[in-house]
Amino acid sequence: MRFLVWFESSSNKAKSLRCIPRAELERLLGLAHCKIISSISNSVMDSYVLSESSLFVSDSRFLLKTCGRTTLLRTVEPLLNLAKDYCNLDGITNMFYSRKNFMRPELQPYLHQNFENEVVVLDKFFDDGAGYCLGRLNSDRWYLYTLNPSPGVISIADQTVEILMSDLDQSIMSNFTMSVSCTAAEARKLSGMDKLFPPDLIIDEKLFRPCGYSMNGILGEKDSYITVHITPEQDHSYVSFESNIRFPHYHDLVALAVFLFKPRRFICTIFAKQGSKEYRRTKKEFSEKSIPGFKMCDLQLLSLPSHALIYAQFQKHAYVNSAKKLIE
Amino acid sequence: MRFLVWFESSSNKAKSLRCIPRAELERLLGLAHCKIISSISNSVMDSYVLSESSLFVSDSRFLLKTCGRTTLLRTVEPLLNLAKDYCNLDGITNMFYSRKNFMRPELQPYLHQNFENEVVVLDKFFDDGAGYCLGRLNSDRWYLYTLNPSPGVISIADQTVEILMSDLDQSIMSNFTMSVSCTAAEARKLSGMDKLFPPDLIIDEKLFRPCGYSMNGILGEKDSYITVHITPEQDHSYVSFESNIRFPHYHDLVALAVFLFKPRRFICTIFAKQGSKEYRRTKKEFSEKSIPGFKMCDLQLLSLPSHALIYAQFQKHAYVNSAKKLIE
Repeated sequence: MRFLVWFESSSNKAKSLRCIPRAELERLLGLAHCKIISSISNSVMDSYVLSESSLFVSDSRFLLKTCGRTTLLRTVEPLLNLAKDYCNLDGITNMFYSRKNFMRPELQPYLHQNFENEVVVLDKFFDDGAGYCLGRLNSDRWYLYTLNPSPGVISIADQTVEILMSDLDQSIMSNFTMSVSCTAAEARKLSGMDKLFPPDLIIDEKLFRPCGYSMNGILGEKDSYITVHITPEQDHSYVSFESNIRFPHYHDLVALAVFLFKPRRFICTIFAKQGSKEYRRTKKEFSEKSIPGFKMCDLQLLSLPSHALIYAQFQKHAYVNSAKKLIE
Repeated sequence: MRFLVWFESSSNKAKSLRCIPRAELERLLGLAHCKIISSISNSVMDSYVLSESSLFVSDSRFLLKTCGRTTLLRTVEPLLNLAKDYCNLDGITNMFYSRKNFMRPELQPYLHQNFENEVVVLDKFFDDGAGYCLGRLNSDRWYLYTLNPSPGVISIADQTVEILMSDLDQSIMSNFTMSVSCTAAEARKLSGMDKLFPPDLIIDEKLFRPCGYSMNGILGEKDSYITVHITPEQDHSYVSFESNIRFPHYHDLVALAVFLFKPRRFICTIFAKQGSKEYRRTKKEFSEKSIPGFKMCDLQLLSLPSHALIYAQFQKHAYVNSAKKLIE
């Protein structure tokens, strides 16, 4: 689950979201059943590794990403109040709430068992919100709730990529267990995932006992992050990768990620600015080039007022594996 | 609701779907609570106007379109059996089952109250079927179930446009009542909808008592149809337009249709061959040109193995109405 909000202020007394006291953040995260494990900062952003989750707080952007049985929606109203009370941020430029379908929705807290219920909750807090379902109702899919601000509202320059991988190769996943790796850094190096990162990424990571891995990375003094979460257990293995770094070729990034992690299937979502060069190039690459070893089962494009979304779902060809050349 | 199936045969003994006896067709339609009111034919197609519904039968294509409280899904299995028994058509090239969200799903028969249930039913009859939701979960949306045949399967050249208009201008709708028009032809002429039709369209139409209108049109000796259904009642006014004719500019057709019928909001779906000139042009026109008087709220593109789908939802600007120039 992912909850991203961009705030704004109707006054000129706005303060940074980073002014929200740590104790308040902890209380907020407690509502979602998340705890802060460690944090790093640069001059524009605070990054928190949470229990199986991540939080990034910038001046006007709040991004909470959770895995497992969390209750993320409980944080919405308290977050809006904190932003108003501590930062005079009384307006929302835009927000994006999204998640993949759950493998077993009945194991989730009642609030999150059904996206239609989540839309009803979100509609209480946001005007003109729109809920979408990308992908297949009877297979992998991805839900999104976002606002449709009137044209003229400041557009947000951020672009993000998410790669949500399922059913992964157990020989790769075993690196993220305490029985194979002693430290998070060792697990990361064994998996080869550093190849996905810019060389100057500052990394905060955690290997869980007995298994599981979370990583937040931030770039120098920029408002740019990467976050990776890994659930290695064979019967529900899952890896999520997300970043707002402007990668030159998203298609190549995705091909490399799935070559490294070897999922049987994955979803990829890319938000880019409507009409931008990145959007046009990425759309063209996903339409025309294949991801080695995979069949693209679904490709959908969604136009939003400021952004365009590319959604693609892939499944492994049983017999093809020519991705190797990508990193050789 | 719309159910379109393309059949094929594993033998060389295939016969036309038009060989299915009329009594069998009537029995089949009875399962959906539809009755044949009138019919016309050309050398390649039979067209039937039904009670608030339409049926078109060609050699290998079966299209049933229903409105109101029908139970279309009940016809699926019996249709597959009829095609096999009478025509040796034992395979499905592709199928498309689609509908708009209902205004009041609780008034529908149980089977059709929830698209997820409909997907479960369809999954019993079709392999590798995929259900999609285009549009917003909390506003207007359109559901589609279709097959994902492996590449190499004969692709279907048909392209279709559907315009589903809601909340229409009552001064236009009143033409489709017996108190204003004496005949279906009079209602059609008063509404100006002939402007949407090619000049050589052969029309079979019906004005219902006290109100309501249905029309099937077929083109010369071609496998091309137009069908229009109108529910004029103020509290649930609705007009659907569909055609598989290759219109030179779908964008202009849509603009003219909504200028004539004046809905407050409408959905438009266009299926075109993947990579075709029509698809590229239509996508470009919908992305770049507005429909006069309307705001495009949603634009989604869905890639399917042989076809691409454009979905767009529009709402009327309260204050703009510059569409007039389109037909002046």
